[in-house]
Amino acid sequence: MNVSFIGAGNLAWHLAPALDNTEYSVKEVFSANPGNARDLAERLYHAQVKETLDFSDSSSTIFIIAVSDDAIADIAREIALPEDALLVHTSGSQPLTVLEYAATPRIGVFYPLQTFTKQRKIALADVPFFIESEDADAEGALVRMARSLSKHVHKISSAQREALHVAAVFASNFTNHMLKIAEDVTVENKLDFDWLKPLIAETVNKSLVLGPGRAQTGPARRGDLEILDKHLEFLHKDEAVATIYRIVSQHILDHYATD
Amino acid sequence: MNVSFIGAGNLAWHLAPALDNTEYSVKEVFSANPGNARDLAERLYHAQVKETLDFSDSSSTIFIIAVSDDAIADIAREIALPEDALLVHTSGSQPLTVLEYAATPRIGVFYPLQTFTKQRKIALADVPFFIESEDADAEGALVRMARSLSKHVHKISSAQREALHVAAVFASNFTNHMLKIAEDVTVENKLDFDWLKPLIAETVNKSLVLGPGRAQTGPARRGDLEILDKHLEFLHKDEAVATIYRIVSQHILDHYATD
Repeated sequence: MNVSFIGAGNLAWHLAPALDNTEYSVKEVFSANPGNARDLAERLYHAQVKETLDFSDSSSTIFIIAVSDDAIADIAREIALPEDALLVHTSGSQPLTVLEYAATPRIGVFYPLQTFTKQRKIALADVPFFIESEDADAEGALVRMARSLSKHVHKISSAQREALHVAAVFASNFTNHMLKIAEDVTVENKLDFDWLKPLIAETVNKSLVLGPGRAQTGPARRGDLEILDKHLEFLHKDEAVATIYRIVSQHILDHYATD
Repeated sequence: MNVSFIGAGNLAWHLAPALDNTEYSVKEVFSANPGNARDLAERLYHAQVKETLDFSDSSSTIFIIAVSDDAIADIAREIALPEDALLVHTSGSQPLTVLEYAATPRIGVFYPLQTFTKQRKIALADVPFFIESEDADAEGALVRMARSLSKHVHKISSAQREALHVAAVFASNFTNHMLKIAEDVTVENKLDFDWLKPLIAETVNKSLVLGPGRAQTGPARRGDLEILDKHLEFLHKDEAVATIYRIVSQHILDHYATD
């Protein structure tokens, strides 16, 4: 089974070589940045770099769009595909319908829920894949392709995927930003961010094992308003960070207020 | 060297047995809740449960207050101590001076930066300990005691410790609360929180290795205002969570706006 990639960013960097080492072969890579396409093709067995979106003579049957969210619709409109091609995107935040103006009726979503960076190896077998298609045959093909990579394959709707993506923003982007603010506070006060690392690791391990509700500790959880006031006074020079402190603390206070 | 614990909560639960397995012996445990003191004493070799704060006949030389922040000052005022006793608290958020009304002039801080829960074993050797005392001899004694437990012992002031504690609230309590909100969004939308776990683990591992600045991804990091608006619309039924989404996203937008 031949597949082609449109996009050669962080996600394609992990997904294409992984597929290329299963029964799927990656035949073509297109990127708006041809250097990225070449770099990715070098990681693959027999992939060629495509310089246009004309795939009408391609031997592939599945076309995987792995580009930034705002570029998907344009690619779907422009891409020329062979007959019976299955066109999918890989976005958590875009509905299936973003592909509706494509030249093929066989469209779907193939969404791996993970944060991908070129420098970080990812165990795809543990990454959950979320599949969507209104075409039963296409859906089956996508489930098979996902199962060739991962033990965790689920069919969900565009609405469910949007909820999952919102949850992922809190779980990943906002969690990371709390660590960024913590780093900034240490740097501004000539402390070493490394001192926080065992705390961060244990916090998250505990939360994953006990669940974040049982794992919560700290002044807001205890309702210790005196400490909250002291911390807000400490942060008074940075209004934006103080606001985050106040609003998140208030939400923790309210969340656990009934126990 | 004999030590006594005032408090038998999560911190004492880890600290007292660890010390009891070094050259230090834990001789006494006091708790406002005598059941907790008995439970902790059972984890120790020769510790007795004390039922009052009269330690004037104690054979211990170091007295470790490990209670909630708002109880420290009262205990310091009430506790009766033998001559030359060294009295310390273990709080990240309380200054050294909270002990100033104690019957001994030898006071200090012995603060391990970690989140302690009875059910979770902690590798104390990796936990940083922060020492403070204005008495050089007492400071030396506390550094020695910390080094018997950990490879990471630092002397910092009350002001530095407050900054470190604010950073720790972001790194631990607020990080955990972002995971709680993510869990709530999955539960409310009949999705499985477990699906987010590989993402959470990779997010934090990546952040610890690359640093949270380089690790940041997501719609706010990319400046994708369309997705931010969609997510705020999705969250409109929960004003408090929508406010957290808006404020943290704005802070990420501003933080990375210059690149």
